[in-house]
Amino acid sequence: MHLTLSLQRSLQQTPDRLATIFHDRRRTFREMADRVARLAGALRSLGMQPGDRVGMLALNSDRYLEYVMAVWWNAGVINPVNIRWSVPEIVYSLDDCDTRILIVDDAFLHMVDGIRRTAKAPPLFIYAGDAEPPQDMASYEQLIDEAAPVPDAGSGGSDLAAIMYTGGTTGFPKGVMLSHTNLGSAAVQRMAEMPPLRGGRNLHVAPLFHIGGLGRAMVQFMAGETHVVLPGFDAVQVLQTIERESVDETMLVPTMIQMLIAHPDFHKYKLGSLQRLAYGASPSAAATVELVLERMPWLQLSHSYGMTEASPIIASNPPENHTEPARRSGLSRSVGRGVVGIHVRIVDPEGRELPRGTVGEIIVRGPNVMQGYWNKPDETAKALKDGWLWTGDGAYMDEAGHIFIVDRMKDMIVTGGENVFSAEVENAISRHPGVAMCAVIGVPSAQWGEAVHAVVMPKPGVVLTEEEIRAHCREFVAGFKCPKTVEFRSELPLSGAGKILKRDLRAPHWAGQARAVA
Amino acid sequence: MHLTLSLQRSLQQTPDRLATIFHDRRRTFREMADRVARLAGALRSLGMQPGDRVGMLALNSDRYLEYVMAVWWNAGVINPVNIRWSVPEIVYSLDDCDTRILIVDDAFLHMVDGIRRTAKAPPLFIYAGDAEPPQDMASYEQLIDEAAPVPDAGSGGSDLAAIMYTGGTTGFPKGVMLSHTNLGSAAVQRMAEMPPLRGGRNLHVAPLFHIGGLGRAMVQFMAGETHVVLPGFDAVQVLQTIERESVDETMLVPTMIQMLIAHPDFHKYKLGSLQRLAYGASPSAAATVELVLERMPWLQLSHSYGMTEASPIIASNPPENHTEPARRSGLSRSVGRGVVGIHVRIVDPEGRELPRGTVGEIIVRGPNVMQGYWNKPDETAKALKDGWLWTGDGAYMDEAGHIFIVDRMKDMIVTGGENVFSAEVENAISRHPGVAMCAVIGVPSAQWGEAVHAVVMPKPGVVLTEEEIRAHCREFVAGFKCPKTVEFRSELPLSGAGKILKRDLRAPHWAGQARAVA
Repeated sequence: MHLTLSLQRSLQQTPDRLATIFHDRRRTFREMADRVARLAGALRSLGMQPGDRVGMLALNSDRYLEYVMAVWWNAGVINPVNIRWSVPEIVYSLDDCDTRILIVDDAFLHMVDGIRRTAKAPPLFIYAGDAEPPQDMASYEQLIDEAAPVPDAGSGGSDLAAIMYTGGTTGFPKGVMLSHTNLGSAAVQRMAEMPPLRGGRNLHVAPLFHIGGLGRAMVQFMAGETHVVLPGFDAVQVLQTIERESVDETMLVPTMIQMLIAHPDFHKYKLGSLQRLAYGASPSAAATVELVLERMPWLQLSHSYGMTEASPIIASNPPENHTEPARRSGLSRSVGRGVVGIHVRIVDPEGRELPRGTVGEIIVRGPNVMQGYWNKPDETAKALKDGWLWTGDGAYMDEAGHIFIVDRMKDMIVTGGENVFSAEVENAISRHPGVAMCAVIGVPSAQWGEAVHAVVMPKPGVVLTEEEIRAHCREFVAGFKCPKTVEFRSELPLSGAGKILKRDLRAPHWAGQARAVA
Repeated sequence: MHLTLSLQRSLQQTPDRLATIFHDRRRTFREMADRVARLAGALRSLGMQPGDRVGMLALNSDRYLEYVMAVWWNAGVINPVNIRWSVPEIVYSLDDCDTRILIVDDAFLHMVDGIRRTAKAPPLFIYAGDAEPPQDMASYEQLIDEAAPVPDAGSGGSDLAAIMYTGGTTGFPKGVMLSHTNLGSAAVQRMAEMPPLRGGRNLHVAPLFHIGGLGRAMVQFMAGETHVVLPGFDAVQVLQTIERESVDETMLVPTMIQMLIAHPDFHKYKLGSLQRLAYGASPSAAATVELVLERMPWLQLSHSYGMTEASPIIASNPPENHTEPARRSGLSRSVGRGVVGIHVRIVDPEGRELPRGTVGEIIVRGPNVMQGYWNKPDETAKALKDGWLWTGDGAYMDEAGHIFIVDRMKDMIVTGGENVFSAEVENAISRHPGVAMCAVIGVPSAQWGEAVHAVVMPKPGVVLTEEEIRAHCREFVAGFKCPKTVEFRSELPLSGAGKILKRDLRAPHWAGQARAVA
């Protein structure tokens, strides 16, 4: 599997099809391939060697997709930098995998000085914007204008293609090493699972630095269809773009979907072109599913479950599991079944497969499973055993192979000897009509070891009480699972992928104490 | 990629779905997985080690599919024996790759003695039939009854999965080495290219020992759908089975399609369930396409082009290239475009890509490309260069990437300094309403070096003359391409894959002479 072949194939078969639409800028696959071959030539003239890491710190754009292809065109490795990170975190990742060249757009120019001052080996900076490049930075557009195109170096198979630093909802950032085979197989498996729409225009809203966004981009490249790109999430821009570009497919996290639907001008836009909406990266979205199907009943909703280490999709819950009967039966709360090409098992800590209905850890095997963590052999050995990836996610499986996630294993709360999976409690709380978002964590308790604690963000204008939440919870789950304490906040800390950062919520409670379940 | 995971996934997700239908025998995936695990246990008790080759010499059956999975379950390598071969040819392949165990059905019992007498290391024979096993042969069913199931050994990735001996239209048989990744990627790529029908019942008529049949079986396994199996081609059985089992998909070679349509009872069967008909393995099928769409206008026809070395599909020509306008424009005579995940190029002998419209050799790259030829490093080095497979097929590509095969490079006839591609002449001859099948070869000529010679099989009851064929040809192709001589036969020699064996047609003409283009 060679990742550039997706672009090569479009150049061969549909050179005049639109490859990218970014605001008013439209480029065909012929134009894109030419720019990629020139950018690759420029990177080579800047000293890039096969295998070198090249980073990009930027909002989504057509250039982001060119960067990805150009690095692979040169047999290099992309390091797509997390745009939510602080300078020290960015410098950590650049130093960790020795990234020699960093492409930066206007939104992150202010970080360049800090990176330059603190990195062990400061990278060479390229400015990817439309203004004059700052001093000491090469210009992306000028490089492309002046460079001669170079031939595709033809890397593929087990050659390293990407180092993706994991979001960091737990622990220290780890560089997930993904090969051409990993990313390519994952894309083809997804196409086999849910065939891409012919002539389909996919809107990239979720960040391309994240495997969720990059993974969808890979499917779109393999299918040879058009990428519509927005810099990031803005409700009005998303609504306008769906209408203007007749977008038929996109992926959003539930928070974004909620914001779209709640927007006062939602009803003013013609969204009939949108056929498919994928969502993921959030533990509990039952309320969002109901809401979105109420407003856009024609939509094919699907949920994807995965992780960076699996490039990323492990399971998918298709549109037929989002129908009214499937919602009543609870099937819409499953993350679906293992996708084509992937073997999924629910196992005990010794790796023995558990009977259906029993909660254990999800392990997976397939060509999409990462090569390991960059320079972290111990972490790699913990995650990969005999070719199986241990996900750290707790789940059970029904008789038809549907997987129901109960929690991150590490998020499990042990209270009075009982295991409480926070997702179950969060599901209960989120059914309260006044709750916008919530997270359940374990906090230290002299009496119970850990106590269930809920952090709740009410809907605007709604006032809730602790007792009200507790009483509501008791309607749905056993008493020991209900929160002992409830805290109200006007917002919750979110990761780049839209996950609630429970680590940040836990930190103040556990300061100076070791948690039983790390 | 682990090939047994396809069965594991069905066992996990749809254990009670029918896996195989063979005449009146129906087995679910749960039953099949149990039999596979027991057969694997039996093979192990017979001394089979990981990596060992196990052969099967049999007509198609549900047991053929069990054999394939059971060998992989034990981390072994299948050697599916060509059922058209003579004893010496079979012995050659068994000896060549050291096949220790050979499963034989009733149809080939008569060859067992000969194999036993002449093989260097005679294999252990297993009888896969419903009668009493012959003396000195283990019983397939008894082995399954008595063996304890063993766990899946979990081989995959670059582990060898199959040695497939090439049909032998040219030269000496070569053992094509296909890994789990080769066969698995090929199947998933085909699913991405043309999504399998949900609940689809594929009818296996083409022999499973051939990559054409095995490749389709792999797609059906990956999709987790039902295999309907017939021992081989019999027009009435095919028609009956499509009707009785509501078959919706099958692959046939054009000769079989012609025999189906020409059958006097064709109109008596309800064939409305059949949605898709794939065809391949024949150089010229334009007349067949017209005919089949006249009789079954609802059919989605697709053509596949490939070879054992590519597991096998390289390009596919989809239903939309078989419409009336596509037939008029000539697009239905293309073999289609390179499929998802595969990079195809038309190159000159130095490997330089040629301009569109120029005839050169097809080379391909992708995860489906073989590891090499068993024990034939020189042949392997000739076929695989820098990861590209040189197909030996001559073709040109249009501006949209459609590939038009002009000939096997080796079948090119050089006559009076002009190159003649026999497929072009065959296409012309086959347009004659009285021609059932034909082949064009080069024969020695004192005057021209080689002369174009046609071997024609007229339709039953039709009498043709040499001059008639020549005059008809001149209507479509240049004079130098028309056959200098024409020979009429009541049948043509066919390979197991339904290809005309030109080698056999050429042999008498070239006895004692070296051919300029070997």
